Amino acid sequence: MNKLNWGLIGGGKGSQIGDAHRIGAAMDNCFELAAGALDIDPKRAKSYAKQLGIASDRSYADWQSMLEGEAGREDGIKLVTVATPNATHYEISKAFLNKGIHVLCEKPLTMTVKEANALQALAEKKNCLLAVNFGYTGYPMVRQARAMVRSGKLGKIRLMSAQFAHGHHSDAADMDNPRVRWRYDPAQAGVSSVLADCGIHALQMATYIADQQVESLQAHFLSGVEGRELEDDASLTVAFSGGTTCRLWTSAIALGHMHGLAIEVFGEKGGLSWHQEQPNQLYYTPLNKPTQIIERGSRGLHKDATLSSRIAIGHPEGMMPAFANIYRDLRAAMDGDKSAVDRLPMVDSGVEMVKVVQTAAKSARSGGKWLKL
Amino acid sequence: MNKLNWGLIGGGKGSQIGDAHRIGAAMDNCFELAAGALDIDPKRAKSYAKQLGIASDRSYADWQSMLEGEAGREDGIKLVTVATPNATHYEISKAFLNKGIHVLCEKPLTMTVKEANALQALAEKKNCLLAVNFGYTGYPMVRQARAMVRSGKLGKIRLMSAQFAHGHHSDAADMDNPRVRWRYDPAQAGVSSVLADCGIHALQMATYIADQQVESLQAHFLSGVEGRELEDDASLTVAFSGGTTCRLWTSAIALGHMHGLAIEVFGEKGGLSWHQEQPNQLYYTPLNKPTQIIERGSRGLHKDATLSSRIAIGHPEGMMPAFANIYRDLRAAMDGDKSAVDRLPMVDSGVEMVKVVQTAAKSARSGGKWLKL
Amino acid sequence: MNKLNWGLIGGGKGSQIGDAHRIGAAMDNCFELAAGALDIDPKRAKSYAKQLGIASDRSYADWQSMLEGEAGREDGIKLVTVATPNATHYEISKAFLNKGIHVLCEKPLTMTVKEANALQALAEKKNCLLAVNFGYTGYPMVRQARAMVRSGKLGKIRLMSAQFAHGHHSDAADMDNPRVRWRYDPAQAGVSSVLADCGIHALQMATYIADQQVESLQAHFLSGVEGRELEDDASLTVAFSGGTTCRLWTSAIALGHMHGLAIEVFGEKGGLSWHQEQPNQLYYTPLNKPTQIIERGSRGLHKDATLSSRIAIGHPEGMMPAFANIYRDLRAAMDGDKSAVDRLPMVDSGVEMVKVVQTAAKSARSGGKWLKL
Amino acid sequence: MNKLNWGLIGGGKGSQIGDAHRIGAAMDNCFELAAGALDIDPKRAKSYAKQLGIASDRSYADWQSMLEGEAGREDGIKLVTVATPNATHYEISKAFLNKGIHVLCEKPLTMTVKEANALQALAEKKNCLLAVNFGYTGYPMVRQARAMVRSGKLGKIRLMSAQFAHGHHSDAADMDNPRVRWRYDPAQAGVSSVLADCGIHALQMATYIADQQVESLQAHFLSGVEGRELEDDASLTVAFSGGTTCRLWTSAIALGHMHGLAIEVFGEKGGLSWHQEQPNQLYYTPLNKPTQIIERGSRGLHKDATLSSRIAIGHPEGMMPAFANIYRDLRAAMDGDKSAVDRLPMVDSGVEMVKVVQTAAKSARSGGKWLKL
Repeated sequence: MNKLNWGLIGGGKGSQIGDAHRIGAAMDNCFELAAGALDIDPKRAKSYAKQLGIASDRSYADWQSMLEGEAGREDGIKLVTVATPNATHYEISKAFLNKGIHVLCEKPLTMTVKEANALQALAEKKNCLLAVNFGYTGYPMVRQARAMVRSGKLGKIRLMSAQFAHGHHSDAADMDNPRVRWRYDPAQAGVSSVLADCGIHALQMATYIADQQVESLQAHFLSGVEGRELEDDASLTVAFSGGTTCRLWTSAIALGHMHGLAIEVFGEKGGLSWHQEQPNQLYYTPLNKPTQIIERGSRGLHKDATLSSRIAIGHPEGMMPAFANIYRDLRAAMDGDKSAVDRLPMVDSGVEMVKVVQTAAKSARSGGKWLKL
Repeated sequence: MNKLNWGLIGGGKGSQIGDAHRIGAAMDNCFELAAGALDIDPKRAKSYAKQLGIASDRSYADWQSMLEGEAGREDGIKLVTVATPNATHYEISKAFLNKGIHVLCEKPLTMTVKEANALQALAEKKNCLLAVNFGYTGYPMVRQARAMVRSGKLGKIRLMSAQFAHGHHSDAADMDNPRVRWRYDPAQAGVSSVLADCGIHALQMATYIADQQVESLQAHFLSGVEGRELEDDASLTVAFSGGTTCRLWTSAIALGHMHGLAIEVFGEKGGLSWHQEQPNQLYYTPLNKPTQIIERGSRGLHKDATLSSRIAIGHPEGMMPAFANIYRDLRAAMDGDKSAVDRLPMVDSGVEMVKVVQTAAKSARSGGKWLKL
Repeated sequence: MNKLNWGLIGGGKGSQIGDAHRIGAAMDNCFELAAGALDIDPKRAKSYAKQLGIASDRSYADWQSMLEGEAGREDGIKLVTVATPNATHYEISKAFLNKGIHVLCEKPLTMTVKEANALQALAEKKNCLLAVNFGYTGYPMVRQARAMVRSGKLGKIRLMSAQFAHGHHSDAADMDNPRVRWRYDPAQAGVSSVLADCGIHALQMATYIADQQVESLQAHFLSGVEGRELEDDASLTVAFSGGTTCRLWTSAIALGHMHGLAIEVFGEKGGLSWHQEQPNQLYYTPLNKPTQIIERGSRGLHKDATLSSRIAIGHPEGMMPAFANIYRDLRAAMDGDKSAVDRLPMVDSGVEMVKVVQTAAKSARSGGKWLKL
Repeated sequence: MNKLNWGLIGGGKGSQIGDAHRIGAAMDNCFELAAGALDIDPKRAKSYAKQLGIASDRSYADWQSMLEGEAGREDGIKLVTVATPNATHYEISKAFLNKGIHVLCEKPLTMTVKEANALQALAEKKNCLLAVNFGYTGYPMVRQARAMVRSGKLGKIRLMSAQFAHGHHSDAADMDNPRVRWRYDPAQAGVSSVLADCGIHALQMATYIADQQVESLQAHFLSGVEGRELEDDASLTVAFSGGTTCRLWTSAIALGHMHGLAIEVFGEKGGLSWHQEQPNQLYYTPLNKPTQIIERGSRGLHKDATLSSRIAIGHPEGMMPAFANIYRDLRAAMDGDKSAVDRLPMVDSGVEMVKVVQTAAKSARSGGKWLKL
């Protein structure tokens, strides 16, 4: 398999998400980091690109010149990852899709539903892949959970619990910290902070596992740290298309929680529980029987879990191979594998979660009204 | 210390809660089980009372004869525990209070707010203790948590999470099981099932730890098992008097959860986490510092935790000594110790939780409106 | 069921083990604490006996007068618990057995093998029960483990791991603490400290679950805190009669361990894991299948586990009900139930563990030689 | 930073360790997989090399031609990883060192002490790095543990516990499975199976964290599965040069254990506990204070832990980034950074662990004699 040329926008030095993308994209030799516009500061962008081994003529000062440069080359990038501030996702994704380049965009896809819909239509028109980096769907045991739900093993899913509740914005002193402050500034972050940043990861994963869509919801937003204009904690009850009710809690002030992403599934015939901080185990409780601990790498897993797994049972796989699974599936999808598209978090999820954010903000402002998406 | 005579209504053979009361009351030699009306079936009541060593003239066929019998004796019981079906709590408690006998009543205190208020007024008038068995407040580390909150160590409490989500009513086949069915029958259970049965335990504990009262709330009820008229799952957002927001999740269909009672506290300066299934540990996270595992029985605990603890660190104490702490405090309160009253779940909590159930049911019916208590 | 009169020697005010015995004996109404010689200080003994409700004429200044007093009464105690310093176990147990009184003796049974053998012979001759308080065998899930091994579900047991490694003697400053110092003084503690105090609990439990006896062993002793004459850490490899190898680690300097009692069973067809600090769960791994978490109180447990369990699944039972199971079985055995004897840790275990201590000390002194018991 | 050319011997298709090396070496752009002799079958070797993007003229049929080919090129590999069967480590490593190529060799370094010593001398003479892939030393929290021990924070280390006890060879049916059988065949595996395969990982890590060497030991070997000529379970007590006693348990029949690598440190002033299956947390218990959970990625860690960490707190890092840390340090060491050598498991550890295996096998055969290394 030859590597395909890939480009990265954003993800400069010190960016954690940039590293995760680079490592994930490289892990299976599917992609070569051929081009980049890595930093808003052109000098830093150049210097870091050099360090990463990007050829100097493909290390760009901004995404516009990158688009121009790459679109004009025979060996131009086939996939671009957009890891820039949220407000820029729309125009960058649009521009690259317009040139027929596949896009993996960081979440949230856009700031408005209108933009999200436009991107979806454009990707379809251009016959391009547009995936949204709900990267936690790459974990093998998340895929195992989805396969178990799909197989009917759990019966009808009555209820799910989705959590992404961390405590890293608990320090009121961070009001002055620029890395935190912008997240609670409506001018920069839009109508929602922690729901848009974290909560939709958990909710998207719930829809992914349940194989259902969001139909309606009610929301309560809390600004727990005094002075914050946007919510740092939220609770939603969400109705899914297949009849499942999903309870979502997301927080940035749950002091003591480190990451706090967890999904639970409660069906007629069985329950599942998965925690991102211990991602190699899936807890499965068949009705009226003992709970089982299903280990990544063990025998008898669904192929979507087995193929997403790289090392032997008992050796922990962390977040990076989960990202690598996203990239491997993107490559397979680019090579025409439809089943890979089914495994990927595609634009429809991205659109749906933008709607969730907007609808939840509206519901929260209205005192918790039930609203259709 | 001489033992005081104590009576038990309900808690017959096979009743788990009855055993827990008997063991708890006996553990510290504060009370002697002197009288009982243990079963709705007078024969079974007699037989079990004999087995428990109750004198035959104080083993009663019903609570009415017990009241008459005991009120007429010089050595009559000083405290009665009411562990009968919910709908009978009111009249039994009222009758014993009227005779000046202290009462420990199982939760929920009554079926209506009016009844609850009446009992509160009566207890005050009669100068009697009326405690409600939110027995989990007897756990040493729950008391440690409360002491830490009160001390200001956690700063202002922004948020709490209260859960009591089990999975023991997940089996749809239990629709025909009389031990389960009545719980979802409005005629027998009233306006709420799992919230009234489980959820208020968690919420009461949150108010206990936070030292605050419930002011208003919004609720969503779900009947996950087809055909149930009452909720088997509920989510509430609750505003406390001191400014804390509390998120409550309670369930009977969370398949895989065994008990699922857990309380978390998120303050400005620290967080706490406690789980009933591992009750000897309290997780404490000071702001910007590592989480600490505070062990029951370790040095430096608050005296309310130390005094509520019986065996050395590392040996698990379970639910029975928690109940024993309730009885020990009742005895101390009867002996005039005001600090014991402060440690106990008293009638005000009982009234409050009856209001919570009624208000939540109303909010849930209204689509999640915010309602004052 | 009428209560039987029971007496306690030792277990005075502040003694944790005394409380555990009293609560355990009382829990199921099998025994009445009728007599006591609770403290080496006669005044404290009297005062505490009064507090516990022992009649003043049966509150004795020492065990000798208790023996005399009780043996002379028609309603004299039928069972005595010996919870005095180790060196006194022999003569007290001997004296009470000689009067035909059943004995529950704290571990270690005696200081020498000769004494242990003598007690065993005497108990047999007098047709008395002589149990040794390896009280952790009272835990329901320990009994479940034993039943699973006996049923053949795990196949031949190749290997066991037994641990009782705590860290509570890690502080070198405790060299001056009288409550710790005597434990490392050969004049008071004999040939072994932590093995005799803790390790034999774990090893006895391994033999109990495996249904095998100790045949031979090798040992290594460590005195980790400078200046200690006896071991505060030991490792043994033990050969059992049925072919199982058991690895034992016991420690008092494992800083960070709270209690550290854990048993693991590794058979041909399955494995088990149980930890005293989380005693309500038994982890069971069938060969080539996922690990299952078997909960106390769940359906389908062996009757020895079900009958040893008092409260519903999900409510933690701690150490006190485990002790109560010992007392309930003692009562049943006194009433002629042979199956109760099978569940109890009897004198043969007591003798065996005295031999283990002596043999291990000898092996450790010899540089780790394999020695027959 | 330009990438250095790197070669891999062994690690063919389906080899898990090969993937771990490739991903680890690639993660930080330190090395380019320029050459390989990936499989004993030349055809498979070629085909897999092509898939991995190795140029066809540098995809070799065997290590001899690779040595010849690479040694003759200006752009020849600077580092080779030896991931072949154990018995071939010696001659391959020797040959590459002789050509001045740095070597990372899988463990065990060699089959005999003589060979190990010879390689050590050769590496020194040739001024080449010779590292041995005790790859678990690359975990950030292992490095944090080492830094804490070195800092004196735990005081003198009295005792350590090292475990690597899995259950994956529990199935007696695997006697016929060629992937398992050779491991228990002395002709192929040498004098030891599970100790040489797993146990030395844990023991090496203990020496790494303690910053001490092995001086003497005693061992017990068990062949738990009938018919095995080599041990599938072993227990060692090991004396370290700085006075620490280390207890090692290693197993392949601990049914229910998944991986089972864990290290505990017990010092005068504090204790540490780390488990490979949950590698992002280090449990630290200061004397007489609560246990703390130190998270990878949190503030205030030692720089060796911080620099070994790639993603934010709460996102799990697994085994692959641990391997990447080994490669990053190798690169730094090749670039002259002495501190990187200090972080790496170098040949001295490799030699020491070969001695441990030989000495332990001898001790086990002698009935557990204490033997100097």
